[in-house]
Amino acid sequence: MAAAFYRLNGNQTFHILSRSSAVRPSLPHRSMMITMSQNQSYWASVNSEIEAHLKQAIPLRPPLQVFEPMHHLVFAAPQNTAPALCLAACELVGGHRDQAMAAASALHLMHAASFTHEHLPLTDRPRPKSRPVIHHAYGPNIELLLGDAIIPFGFELLARSDDPAQNNSDRILRVTIEITRAMGSQGMVEGQYYELECPQSDGEELCDVGWIEQVCKKKEGGLHACGAACGAILGGGSEEEIEKLRRFGLYVGMIQGMLHGAGRKEKGLKEVVEELRNLALKELEEFKGRKVEAISSFVNV
Amino acid sequence: MAAAFYRLNGNQTFHILSRSSAVRPSLPHRSMMITMSQNQSYWASVNSEIEAHLKQAIPLRPPLQVFEPMHHLVFAAPQNTAPALCLAACELVGGHRDQAMAAASALHLMHAASFTHEHLPLTDRPRPKSRPVIHHAYGPNIELLLGDAIIPFGFELLARSDDPAQNNSDRILRVTIEITRAMGSQGMVEGQYYELECPQSDGEELCDVGWIEQVCKKKEGGLHACGAACGAILGGGSEEEIEKLRRFGLYVGMIQGMLHGAGRKEKGLKEVVEELRNLALKELEEFKGRKVEAISSFVNV
Repeated sequence: MAAAFYRLNGNQTFHILSRSSAVRPSLPHRSMMITMSQNQSYWASVNSEIEAHLKQAIPLRPPLQVFEPMHHLVFAAPQNTAPALCLAACELVGGHRDQAMAAASALHLMHAASFTHEHLPLTDRPRPKSRPVIHHAYGPNIELLLGDAIIPFGFELLARSDDPAQNNSDRILRVTIEITRAMGSQGMVEGQYYELECPQSDGEELCDVGWIEQVCKKKEGGLHACGAACGAILGGGSEEEIEKLRRFGLYVGMIQGMLHGAGRKEKGLKEVVEELRNLALKELEEFKGRKVEAISSFVNV
Repeated sequence: MAAAFYRLNGNQTFHILSRSSAVRPSLPHRSMMITMSQNQSYWASVNSEIEAHLKQAIPLRPPLQVFEPMHHLVFAAPQNTAPALCLAACELVGGHRDQAMAAASALHLMHAASFTHEHLPLTDRPRPKSRPVIHHAYGPNIELLLGDAIIPFGFELLARSDDPAQNNSDRILRVTIEITRAMGSQGMVEGQYYELECPQSDGEELCDVGWIEQVCKKKEGGLHACGAACGAILGGGSEEEIEKLRRFGLYVGMIQGMLHGAGRKEKGLKEVVEELRNLALKELEEFKGRKVEAISSFVNV
């Protein structure tokens, strides 16, 4: 099975099993080929489900001067794969996508709040080169306030997903702790702190690969590790499965951060990414014959 | 009983029953006199318990460059009565203070994060006259990040207080929702938004009493209503008790906001405060013979 993954990885082609695709038992391998409508990847498909869920959760209701910008900032943040990974992990361990939808939505909200605050113009803030210039639809004051509103709203969505019929309170509380840690002072915030510490430079070369790796580990890595672990917890995975998927998420997030961040042209980075891909796929080896194709595609998004 | 409250209120003297004070059955009224050591009020006493709990919860551990400022900001924020009210409400409905300690600590953390972000120097931010000039021990960048770290940490503390032996997951999830709503876009953030809308003026007269009331209702009022409701939920109060205490908290918070905020010299404000005091004490009428003295002292803190 491991060989199959590496082959897949080497080919740079990922065949995705859609939930809605017809599985033809006589051609097991062909059934794993992409059959999704409109050529959507698994990631894009689940992402649009998460977006739809969030659009329902954040109606444009009064006070409009608060909800309109909140709505805008939530959907203006660039898409992130951690929420989709959360759903994929839930499905991988045998759960239903819906069980992890609130957690995935909360993860997107946390990401959106983080993104908004990262781009706030503060009086002492040099813009790290790793952060693109973004269009600000609202003033910094509103963006600060709304970031502060989006974070609790994420935790509210999650807590509200408690369903007495499912008796899932303990899992939801555990996932709450997972998300608070991923976002807090030993997670996202620590990564943002490291990022600010990078010596500013006018050239292309920003910081070395080691520094990029450290930032990506705390930011994208932590968010994806959390997403995957939360999905596995909510889907009813074993402790071993949860930890495997947490590591898988860590590698996937680091790859994302390294390939899409500021240091993507850095020397030696390609090799590190390749190594991370191998490590990530290795974590999936024991999930034989399950929805492995969908989740393994995340190493290449 | 109601008369007794009004009398107490009229006298401006509040006799507090300490947990540790010896109750002498032969002198029931005297037993309600202040017998606490060092002349501490109930509020000050429970506040120091909350502080001790938080000090344990935020150890100075690595990374020190993150935890040291976090520690500082949490304890540099001015004390707020909402956390203590949470414990008082828990005790009033028959619960033990410890059952609400995590929620009270989370409330202080939310307040500290809010306070920190309210005082961030943003490029487009005029300083509302209602906000005092504060000393900034750290740069705005660090204060922004740490505020973002403190909020999830509060929710983590709360979620971690889940105790399988107590089977209290549902209460904790309910309290999580209460806190997210009090802090979010229809709570604290909405109040902060209103606050920014107040026309800036160089004179003493800022905005009218109606505006002050609206801001205080959303900010201090919402935080205290939440604190009291959370305490009642965690202490096992009935739905009726929870709602009574929520209204009590709302009035108490509004009084706090109006007496200590920018518009405290505004004409007509004293009358509004007096009316709020009466409304608050009215909510306590049915809690006869219970730890009413402690909690009623909050209308006068």
